[in-house]
Amino acid sequence: MTSTSAPAPLTGVIPPLLTPLTADGQLDRPSLERLVTRLLEAGVDGIFALGSSGEIAFFDDAQRAEVLEAVTGTVAGQVPVIAGVIDTQTRRVIQHLRAAERFDLGGYVATAPFYAVTGPEEIDAHFRAVAAAADAPVWAYDIPVCVHAKLSPQHLVALGADGVITGVKDSSGDDVSFRRLAGMNRASGSPLTLLTGHEVVVDGAYLAGAAGSVPGLGNVDPGGYVRMHRAARAGDWEQVRTEQERLAALFEIVFQPVGKTGPAAGVGAFKTALRELGVLSTNVMATPMSPIDDAEVVARIRTILEQTGLLEGARA
Amino acid sequence: MTSTSAPAPLTGVIPPLLTPLTADGQLDRPSLERLVTRLLEAGVDGIFALGSSGEIAFFDDAQRAEVLEAVTGTVAGQVPVIAGVIDTQTRRVIQHLRAAERFDLGGYVATAPFYAVTGPEEIDAHFRAVAAAADAPVWAYDIPVCVHAKLSPQHLVALGADGVITGVKDSSGDDVSFRRLAGMNRASGSPLTLLTGHEVVVDGAYLAGAAGSVPGLGNVDPGGYVRMHRAARAGDWEQVRTEQERLAALFEIVFQPVGKTGPAAGVGAFKTALRELGVLSTNVMATPMSPIDDAEVVARIRTILEQTGLLEGARA
Amino acid sequence: MTSTSAPAPLTGVIPPLLTPLTADGQLDRPSLERLVTRLLEAGVDGIFALGSSGEIAFFDDAQRAEVLEAVTGTVAGQVPVIAGVIDTQTRRVIQHLRAAERFDLGGYVATAPFYAVTGPEEIDAHFRAVAAAADAPVWAYDIPVCVHAKLSPQHLVALGADGVITGVKDSSGDDVSFRRLAGMNRASGSPLTLLTGHEVVVDGAYLAGAAGSVPGLGNVDPGGYVRMHRAARAGDWEQVRTEQERLAALFEIVFQPVGKTGPAAGVGAFKTALRELGVLSTNVMATPMSPIDDAEVVARIRTILEQTGLLEGARA
Amino acid sequence: MTSTSAPAPLTGVIPPLLTPLTADGQLDRPSLERLVTRLLEAGVDGIFALGSSGEIAFFDDAQRAEVLEAVTGTVAGQVPVIAGVIDTQTRRVIQHLRAAERFDLGGYVATAPFYAVTGPEEIDAHFRAVAAAADAPVWAYDIPVCVHAKLSPQHLVALGADGVITGVKDSSGDDVSFRRLAGMNRASGSPLTLLTGHEVVVDGAYLAGAAGSVPGLGNVDPGGYVRMHRAARAGDWEQVRTEQERLAALFEIVFQPVGKTGPAAGVGAFKTALRELGVLSTNVMATPMSPIDDAEVVARIRTILEQTGLLEGARA
Repeated sequence: MTSTSAPAPLTGVIPPLLTPLTADGQLDRPSLERLVTRLLEAGVDGIFALGSSGEIAFFDDAQRAEVLEAVTGTVAGQVPVIAGVIDTQTRRVIQHLRAAERFDLGGYVATAPFYAVTGPEEIDAHFRAVAAAADAPVWAYDIPVCVHAKLSPQHLVALGADGVITGVKDSSGDDVSFRRLAGMNRASGSPLTLLTGHEVVVDGAYLAGAAGSVPGLGNVDPGGYVRMHRAARAGDWEQVRTEQERLAALFEIVFQPVGKTGPAAGVGAFKTALRELGVLSTNVMATPMSPIDDAEVVARIRTILEQTGLLEGARA
Repeated sequence: MTSTSAPAPLTGVIPPLLTPLTADGQLDRPSLERLVTRLLEAGVDGIFALGSSGEIAFFDDAQRAEVLEAVTGTVAGQVPVIAGVIDTQTRRVIQHLRAAERFDLGGYVATAPFYAVTGPEEIDAHFRAVAAAADAPVWAYDIPVCVHAKLSPQHLVALGADGVITGVKDSSGDDVSFRRLAGMNRASGSPLTLLTGHEVVVDGAYLAGAAGSVPGLGNVDPGGYVRMHRAARAGDWEQVRTEQERLAALFEIVFQPVGKTGPAAGVGAFKTALRELGVLSTNVMATPMSPIDDAEVVARIRTILEQTGLLEGARA
Repeated sequence: MTSTSAPAPLTGVIPPLLTPLTADGQLDRPSLERLVTRLLEAGVDGIFALGSSGEIAFFDDAQRAEVLEAVTGTVAGQVPVIAGVIDTQTRRVIQHLRAAERFDLGGYVATAPFYAVTGPEEIDAHFRAVAAAADAPVWAYDIPVCVHAKLSPQHLVALGADGVITGVKDSSGDDVSFRRLAGMNRASGSPLTLLTGHEVVVDGAYLAGAAGSVPGLGNVDPGGYVRMHRAARAGDWEQVRTEQERLAALFEIVFQPVGKTGPAAGVGAFKTALRELGVLSTNVMATPMSPIDDAEVVARIRTILEQTGLLEGARA
Repeated sequence: MTSTSAPAPLTGVIPPLLTPLTADGQLDRPSLERLVTRLLEAGVDGIFALGSSGEIAFFDDAQRAEVLEAVTGTVAGQVPVIAGVIDTQTRRVIQHLRAAERFDLGGYVATAPFYAVTGPEEIDAHFRAVAAAADAPVWAYDIPVCVHAKLSPQHLVALGADGVITGVKDSSGDDVSFRRLAGMNRASGSPLTLLTGHEVVVDGAYLAGAAGSVPGLGNVDPGGYVRMHRAARAGDWEQVRTEQERLAALFEIVFQPVGKTGPAAGVGAFKTALRELGVLSTNVMATPMSPIDDAEVVARIRTILEQTGLLEGARA
């Protein structure tokens, strides 16, 4: 890729798009279209397809392609779409890059290698090889809860300075490291665009230097994140805080499921909320996850939607 | 303890006091007095003696008593002093409570049990037994990097609602959990005072609902943290951010030591900085830690002090 | 799959086959044939293709198929070949099952789901779905260092009792859990065949109840593992121990590389040893791993090969 | 300490003595005497007082002294008694050494520093300072589940070669590392005596090179461990295995408690078993742990005692 073809840096609210499924586990295109339309109408700045919230790890290659085709078709260039090319090691990631080239994508999102343990040397070689094979900017996705390695701020800034990556999606849960990353990035001329993936502390990330957010919860309440982003740009921190606190209260939906963990709880709660809001037809999850079918849990999720002003909005 | 005797909640900047040592490892009282005086003059709201930054884990019982005597004597009631009573399990913590009773203390700081693995039932019994034995309010210290257990927001708020603990010093490194804690605390009538121990993200913690900070770096630059606190109270978030960014740049001193980790790096850097600033006579650490004696590391620390405006201030 | 078509349980020494690569990273079939022939001549009981030692995580789908074609073609039915179908989640594992069906395989090896966090319910559903889709017995591969979840003995025995899995390859590093697994398996009528993947403690695993081993080091010294297995079957534990101690000394080759971790060190050392032994043409690793090219490290590996009787054997 | 005063290396079965408590949490000396007498009659080679199984982390200084006085008084020189001096950091460990000097002890057991994070340099300085202060040999206790650091085989052998430590009690749960330790120790002239703390894999540890065991379960069935040790010395590995398998079945008592973890489950089960066997008067645990009071759990423990031949022995 040449620098002249690089798009303007992608900032703002870029929700990691959920992948709606039908009752028998197939891609639910009508629900996907409703979901995307709702995000666009709320004013999001981009769409991140096939992220962790998009259940990428659960989909085989054909499904991944089907999702990208549907998302890019629905978005139709209204905002940039970036796509996860997440897999264990370099060759497999590049295989996904190749498969994604035919879609209209504004970038790719890749993690460090996983499953097989790798060290700094291999992580560096990995990102350089992936970027060299990509026809659009590459974002580094720092998500130790899945990858079990933390990307160091120094390394990320070095990759940015070398033009290997365009930015970072930080889902590290390590706000101290994020602050250091922001400081080092600034000190190096800001080669990186920094986005946070943590729904309930986006306000602090904005103070630290985030240029935007990639909130899974943004599927449920895109308007809240868009308003928070605009308030942050305007320096209206009381508004930022007010919006963040409401969104943090809304985020409690992910703690309602009993006996579930990981995306079965988190993405499961998002899908259930969106079903209750009339956006998705089902709350079905990819195998081997089962949907939230406990009526009491669903009721608690509805209550939280009401308390945070989402469900009334849906009823209006 | 009765609620009528409870002091007003302690908020604001409460540095975890370093414990200056002489070249032969004894308590360095002149340096301690200079350090405390400097903090008080900067306007700190309290002093936390014998915390992790105070090297409590390294001191035997006699040394702990000597430190408390010196600190309370020097502070002389100008601000509240709270003291760590950190030890493996309940009986040992209570042993420290007993030893500390003769000093003028405004509260105690206790962690969950450690070394022997315990579960939620034992952690709950632990805090209740410690609080029942204490003659002043007890703070829960959430520091998984040392204790290897994370205190849950639900549990902390329940302990607050029951009057067992007065507040939380959060050094969990888990900003998502802190946000949830703040939200649950508010929803329960704010029984807890929440303080953050993470030097470089105090601004985000203030947005989330922290009432103050316990920054180890506050030993080095108390004025910065006091100014940040006042700006936060005044709602001047740009000033908060500006101050925080400078302090984050200053915090880079802890990453300069080579081949050191934990307090040998962090507290070691703080002590070295304070020696360079003329406050401490040595940068000696408690056994088995060796001080930072690499001239290049010391030079880098000096450079950071200069870049962040600390060393010129000392020279002025 | 019907129980009548199930092969006799696979026991004994089943090395996880390395995947030899040419200088430009392609499958090196002549080296592969030499390696397989050497294993068969040493008397191994089976071959495990595309395991962690086979660098499965680094290969794209086409490469995986190429390896299976080459291995089954070379083995030509002389011993059973089982194949890793390792991937993040259920659908992707089943995709690999489908791709492998055309080869002459005696079983498949699958891990719990990874990347996306899953709980007991999902892990159970995963193995059941994978087994239902498989045309040959499925082995559970317990390897927390890669998967970051430990399979519980109770769960494994339940899966065995239900006919879902035929056995376990234990690379958990948790010998206490393995002992419990062996005891629970016996108490349930031994539905599972238990194999250990830990090269240096196979003797203890035999005492505990292992029916065989899957030693990566068996690529380098298959004869040693075959002799140890036969001695264990004969109850000659002094011979078992003697052989194990020599093999443990040989295993030190994996600790010689400097600045490498995971397979870059372990598989890298195996490949380097086999190159020095004249079996492989190169010690090339899959991207993003670089081969061991430090002459001093290679010299130390050669010295260990000599001390443990391997290199003289090669020279003879 | 001078090498001429060093006792012969302590090998064989050295149970980590439980600390019996009365209903109100005081040391129960009659029970302690029954417990010690039973161990001595079974032929144990030593007693390890104040280990993790002895609830050392839960006792204050006065209690620690009381336990050592009672144990050494009861043992009365019939076998060596070694004592845990476990605490967070060097000075505190030395404080315990000083307090223990007045008792007739054959050695001390110390862990790496904990609570405050330390690195290799500090761990090395710690053991050297502790050994320099000790009037009897020092054993290194490798127990990462409590200390959250793993002692490296290289470091342990170096400490042994320098005369700093006399041996290792390995409770690391890392049998691969233990095998390496045994090999490195032999290669260095066996400066270390190696003991394993893992009750259910002592047989494998003997094959690897352990000179004895420190099994918590040895409080419940000392005879079993003594028989296993003698069989191992005699090279009767089938007898070793038979005894180990029975002991592994007995160890299942620690997995019966519901909702308990760590010593509340493990030591709790040992104490409950010994109460059922008529050795201890209560199964009371140190604060904040509650005893096992669930009748169903107690019944399951009794059933296991019967199935493994313990309870009939007690009744005879």
